[in-house]
Amino acid sequence: MAKEPRPIDQLTIWDDAKAMIRKARAEGIETVHERLDQQTPHCKFCELGTTCRNCTMGPCRVSEKKPRGVCGADADVIVARNFGRFVTGGAAGHSDHGRDLIEVLEAIVEGEAPDYKITEEGKLRTIAGEIGIKEAGRDIMDVAKDVMECFFADFGSRKKEVSFLSRVPQKRKDLWAKLGMTPRGVDREIAEMMHRTHMGCDNDAPNTLIHAARTALADGWGGSMIGTELSDVIFGTPKPRMSTANLGVIKEDQVNILVHGHNPVVSEQILAAARDPELLARAKELGASGINLAGLCCTGNELLMRQGIPMAGNHLMTELAIITGAVEAIVVDYQCIMPSLVQVAGCYHTKFIDTANKARFTGAIHFDFQPRTAMQQAKEIVSIAVEAFAERDAGRVEIPGEPIEIMTGFSNEAVIEALGGSLDPLIQAIVAGDIKGAVGIVGCNNPKIKHDSLNVGLAKELIKRDILVIATGCVTTAAGKAGLLVPGAIEMAGPGLKKVCGSLGIPPVLHYGSCVDNSRIMQLCAALANTLNVDISDLPVGASSPEWYSEKAAAIGLYAVASGIYTHLGHPPNILGSETVTNLAVSGLEDLVGATFFIEPDPVKTADLFEERINAKRKGLGLDK
Amino acid sequence: MAKEPRPIDQLTIWDDAKAMIRKARAEGIETVHERLDQQTPHCKFCELGTTCRNCTMGPCRVSEKKPRGVCGADADVIVARNFGRFVTGGAAGHSDHGRDLIEVLEAIVEGEAPDYKITEEGKLRTIAGEIGIKEAGRDIMDVAKDVMECFFADFGSRKKEVSFLSRVPQKRKDLWAKLGMTPRGVDREIAEMMHRTHMGCDNDAPNTLIHAARTALADGWGGSMIGTELSDVIFGTPKPRMSTANLGVIKEDQVNILVHGHNPVVSEQILAAARDPELLARAKELGASGINLAGLCCTGNELLMRQGIPMAGNHLMTELAIITGAVEAIVVDYQCIMPSLVQVAGCYHTKFIDTANKARFTGAIHFDFQPRTAMQQAKEIVSIAVEAFAERDAGRVEIPGEPIEIMTGFSNEAVIEALGGSLDPLIQAIVAGDIKGAVGIVGCNNPKIKHDSLNVGLAKELIKRDILVIATGCVTTAAGKAGLLVPGAIEMAGPGLKKVCGSLGIPPVLHYGSCVDNSRIMQLCAALANTLNVDISDLPVGASSPEWYSEKAAAIGLYAVASGIYTHLGHPPNILGSETVTNLAVSGLEDLVGATFFIEPDPVKTADLFEERINAKRKGLGLDK
Repeated sequence: MAKEPRPIDQLTIWDDAKAMIRKARAEGIETVHERLDQQTPHCKFCELGTTCRNCTMGPCRVSEKKPRGVCGADADVIVARNFGRFVTGGAAGHSDHGRDLIEVLEAIVEGEAPDYKITEEGKLRTIAGEIGIKEAGRDIMDVAKDVMECFFADFGSRKKEVSFLSRVPQKRKDLWAKLGMTPRGVDREIAEMMHRTHMGCDNDAPNTLIHAARTALADGWGGSMIGTELSDVIFGTPKPRMSTANLGVIKEDQVNILVHGHNPVVSEQILAAARDPELLARAKELGASGINLAGLCCTGNELLMRQGIPMAGNHLMTELAIITGAVEAIVVDYQCIMPSLVQVAGCYHTKFIDTANKARFTGAIHFDFQPRTAMQQAKEIVSIAVEAFAERDAGRVEIPGEPIEIMTGFSNEAVIEALGGSLDPLIQAIVAGDIKGAVGIVGCNNPKIKHDSLNVGLAKELIKRDILVIATGCVTTAAGKAGLLVPGAIEMAGPGLKKVCGSLGIPPVLHYGSCVDNSRIMQLCAALANTLNVDISDLPVGASSPEWYSEKAAAIGLYAVASGIYTHLGHPPNILGSETVTNLAVSGLEDLVGATFFIEPDPVKTADLFEERINAKRKGLGLDK
Repeated sequence: MAKEPRPIDQLTIWDDAKAMIRKARAEGIETVHERLDQQTPHCKFCELGTTCRNCTMGPCRVSEKKPRGVCGADADVIVARNFGRFVTGGAAGHSDHGRDLIEVLEAIVEGEAPDYKITEEGKLRTIAGEIGIKEAGRDIMDVAKDVMECFFADFGSRKKEVSFLSRVPQKRKDLWAKLGMTPRGVDREIAEMMHRTHMGCDNDAPNTLIHAARTALADGWGGSMIGTELSDVIFGTPKPRMSTANLGVIKEDQVNILVHGHNPVVSEQILAAARDPELLARAKELGASGINLAGLCCTGNELLMRQGIPMAGNHLMTELAIITGAVEAIVVDYQCIMPSLVQVAGCYHTKFIDTANKARFTGAIHFDFQPRTAMQQAKEIVSIAVEAFAERDAGRVEIPGEPIEIMTGFSNEAVIEALGGSLDPLIQAIVAGDIKGAVGIVGCNNPKIKHDSLNVGLAKELIKRDILVIATGCVTTAAGKAGLLVPGAIEMAGPGLKKVCGSLGIPPVLHYGSCVDNSRIMQLCAALANTLNVDISDLPVGASSPEWYSEKAAAIGLYAVASGIYTHLGHPPNILGSETVTNLAVSGLEDLVGATFFIEPDPVKTADLFEERINAKRKGLGLDK
């Protein structure tokens, strides 16, 4: 137990993080880094994916010495089953989030959600058209009702394909149909994956992985895409705007509320409540100059993209944000919320407030947040934070660093508007070679990797090579803190990218939103492919999740690859115990779907591989000789 | 590796099994028993449920020394998450099976399934009435269409409760509503469980377990019940009839086809194809006197209940059946099919044929079995078996034992008919104390437990005490081989049970069908409770899965407990690493749902505990002083 803690310089590239880890150690507060030390070395079988717990004839561990579990399953079957369920956990998370947005739309349609409204009527009508719903001349609420019903049906058993497959190039759809990979209903694919991985069902690793890809596609083109699009409809389509990032966004003289999780349904109301005059007056009464809202992770991204709310930090900053000692409340919805936050909050005056019946935390203050009572509940939550200000121990407050400027709000709609109404200027820049291609850098932090070193390292390497970077999720804060999300960052870019971004006044790294918003990237790729009349796999694009940790990241990676996008992971999923599965992931998929994963921990080598791939795709399109 | 194999006498109570294990060892063929030896001891962390692989910050193992995973999850959270996913695997299996029946009904309605029909119009009309669909005076196909649509919707996102909750006593429904346990849509609960167990979502063990129960209820009163009821509608409601069981049902002079898995959609067609004159003629040409179909596990139960097809064996007999050397083909659908069967079949001339795209086996002959082409495909499959007869090595054939007689076919409809049209005679026998109560013994085999020793031991102990036993799943063959499934078995029963069963001419152990057919038991309990105007938890009944192994068994156990039925497991699930979860399972649930699990490896002690509980419930109902 009494392991020497790793030196702080090895843990993170950021000064604000280092300061807070130092403070945590001084105050005797455990963080994710110490727990990783405790858990290292990990179980080799679990790391290789060769442990099976899917029945009580086991648990089993297979290896060369004992090559089959009690039922007879070998490493290929066990690894494929485990990976299938892993991806399904991620697909279910995103998609259940998407369903929550449909339920809010339903409540709006039924007049049961007084604090929510259809903000983007035009976008809703566009979506209706895309999914085959007549909208011209119809009342917006009638259109909304049909869209809502269509999206609910996308989770059901009766569709042959999810609605947004209307966005997918025909070549790709034909390929999916041939492979048995066409996503039908989101929940159906999830349930079928769980069925297939029960003892005595799917015992052919490639077949299991095909369904894992189908489940992931149901996420990317189904649940996630619905989540993004309805969030835009209800809360507004993001437009470029400026904000700030890092722990410096926490204000010493204000009531600080951090919102954390993924779904804007709660946090948008918290934001509105934080502007309530009575609550502001009460905050002043208690000596605070105001109520400051800041975001963490993807709930942060949602508010940043649409409202310009500053970002306190990404995944590995969540504990550290509380350790500033200046946070009155952390309000969470779901996903990626380390349960340790309850303990860290308990070391301070910080109130930990959960808001979803499906994501409760032992020891938290619980709200069963409902659309019908949203504003009332949001005010109660903010009030708890305000009152906590009186309990703050000023002697324990330390807010490191100054906020860094960032530009945010790059929805596809905003990009097209910036380009003058179509994607043509972007295509022309690619054809001309000013922009060689584009890579989406997405996903998480993982304490196994020096915090944000790869996220930032890869982004810098790529823009140097005239490859446009699109950032979402926890990469947002990383790129932001590195100064990559401002127009001035073109100074770090290659000459072509510098020229194009400079003329448009945009950064060479575009913030595209939260993790569900990776669906925006899919939509963009599909639109480019459709414009060029090629498949997505023909485009000079790539995807990367350098510091990923979550099941959702695995689902995202798999839907990207299955959609034809060459995808980088900074470290492997737990599949190395099966040669069949590993080979399929890093090479065999090329023949099936025209793209693979690649695993590479070094940012320069990763950029080399992307550049090589992008150059090959450019050649394939006849752009370069 | 070179462990001494356990003595055969320790492995099973059956002579046919012992003979085949002996043959396997002589021929150098590995069975489940050797693989269990290799896998013992199991990983302690996995056994305790304290391993987490739900993200790649881990894998983690928690213990007293390192009480939290990298994210901060403790043993309670990790065990609850793992158990939640375990139950979900089972619920998904059953329910996806149920969905397949709805799809066959859909194909019938659409005229796309020429080889299937609505066999039980009356039952379909009854079901329609129960779920609120008008049927009087309507064409049966119109009724079928509405029922089909209603059941599809039971898997969706929009229902507040699954349709068959109409069968549940109001008190129980109110309790579920209060606890947040009312099952909404089947797939929705499955997807939500996967979401909740993603890192950073549900981090409160009791809250996670409530949803596990909800997911299980969606299985028991949703997916499974739909599976049972539509199987009856399409293939006929079981009626009492005689058949036989054990390896002796395999015929030396015939083409032997074993059907294995769970869904009757394939096996009913195989049965019909096996009676095809051309195929029979070809079999004779090759020297066989006929084509013999025999069942394994629950596909066996389905054909046994409705068609009287003999049962070759249960879970631990599946490898051994092939080792007779007399099996031309084993035709599988899905669930509980040990992948080792492919290897065992490969040691003989036996063809291993899989039929479901969602359950493929590396090395198998694959059919993508479809309702539209069912009979054609079934004939092709039977033809493969017939041709294989020529490859049989007579010198390696050994069929042990003589078939044992069994009585089968006890659907609730059949029981009520036997009772003269209502449940009243059964209730009167319970009131009089001739029947003290009833226990459903269900589920599997597990090589950790001497094969069928508990299944048979418990059944014998219970009937001695005038407790009626209802058997399903793999307990069927166990009870059958023990001579408990014939009217003459009343000689082993107590005086009251002997009197009642004797007068009705039925066995003291009633075969109620397959694993999905546990829904018949739920329906019976609900009907009894409704008749008596009490809750299910007030009844003198219990459930047991003495030798369970599968995720489905865990789902069944949990829906039984959540429905108010005291439930025995012969060995624990992998939850002992959490005191919170364990205590909730074996005591805390009593206060919540009026029933708990209990774990007991000894059949006599188990019977004692059931008797005690039944006596207490009888007192509660005012039946005994």
